Amino acid sequence: MADFIEPLSKLAEQFGRLSGIGRKTAMRLAFSVLDMSNDEAADFAQAILDAKTKIHLCPVCQNLTDKDICDICTDNSRDRSIICVVEDAKAVLALENVREFNGLYHVLGGVISPMNGVTPEKLRIKELLARCEDSSVKEIIIATNPTVEGEATAMYLSRLLKPIGIIVTRLAYGIPVGGDLEYADAVTLYRALEGRRDV
Amino acid sequence: MADFIEPLSKLAEQFGRLSGIGRKTAMRLAFSVLDMSNDEAADFAQAILDAKTKIHLCPVCQNLTDKDICDICTDNSRDRSIICVVEDAKAVLALENVREFNGLYHVLGGVISPMNGVTPEKLRIKELLARCEDSSVKEIIIATNPTVEGEATAMYLSRLLKPIGIIVTRLAYGIPVGGDLEYADAVTLYRALEGRRDV
Repeated sequence: MADFIEPLSKLAEQFGRLSGIGRKTAMRLAFSVLDMSNDEAADFAQAILDAKTKIHLCPVCQNLTDKDICDICTDNSRDRSIICVVEDAKAVLALENVREFNGLYHVLGGVISPMNGVTPEKLRIKELLARCEDSSVKEIIIATNPTVEGEATAMYLSRLLKPIGIIVTRLAYGIPVGGDLEYADAVTLYRALEGRRDV
Repeated sequence: MADFIEPLSKLAEQFGRLSGIGRKTAMRLAFSVLDMSNDEAADFAQAILDAKTKIHLCPVCQNLTDKDICDICTDNSRDRSIICVVEDAKAVLALENVREFNGLYHVLGGVISPMNGVTPEKLRIKELLARCEDSSVKEIIIATNPTVEGEATAMYLSRLLKPIGIIVTRLAYGIPVGGDLEYADAVTLYRALEGRRDV
């Protein structure tokens, strides 16, 4: 039946293309667009177009922005001696939500993954090295995800950066706060033991 | 940080208005729009506008359609003596997926719910009665949801329709296929016992 109402099934198909949206959820979302007023639907459509046309990469940190240079890079109150290297814009969002880190970011746009055809040249590593030429940069915090590819990328970057005389650090591994030792995997527990600190 | 990239947070806000989409999922969906090509995003925006402008209610059964009269109502191979009364278009979709029912539908557009200000006059009951004046209609299957309001609506409709000499039936209650007696609630079990049938 859904196939009969073509505009509805086409809309559901569009929702189905979004990450993590299955067939049933896509149909539910399509129905919920029908429940909107015409103005609301027009606003929604416009928001999609605006997001695509207005957002581009910041030429400095490669994060997403709708300005010439992003708000973080232009913020003079931030510590320009520390750059936190992340995989994507979502990681910047997560770190900014913590409201603790006051340095700058650099978004790689992925991790090295030869299996998926992602070589170091495809990441924004040369832009990072160019930024490190500025003598004000003292420390690079590598905050790629704790996956095999994230680790390999961290290793690759540290080998490039250390010889320039920059302090290279990595986010701490350990048991997540509020977690339970019983459910922590062996590798995490091992890293937590290894990284133990004075109380 | 999300607040800094205004077009992104605006898009996430729009996704957040859809049913069942929370703040985090909305942000994930907004990011996945950014991963689309410009053409894909334009198609998505157009699909939203198309769904809103092209879809309206079928004047006969009150179901959603993009035609003058919906495909089910114009399908001559369907049995015009049975009308299945449902709450909304989603229920039509669910029943059509079964591919067993070959009659027509009537979409009420809700259920009687005085608490929410939905009186019988606000539902498309008079349209249903008008259809029943056609002597070819022999049976009305009331397929409102098995909720208090759905039950009340079924009762209300049966009182209106039976005096006209139409057979009024209700979907069977019972344990869902593949379910487990252990987890069935008492009311469902009671209804399943009450509605037991010869093997």
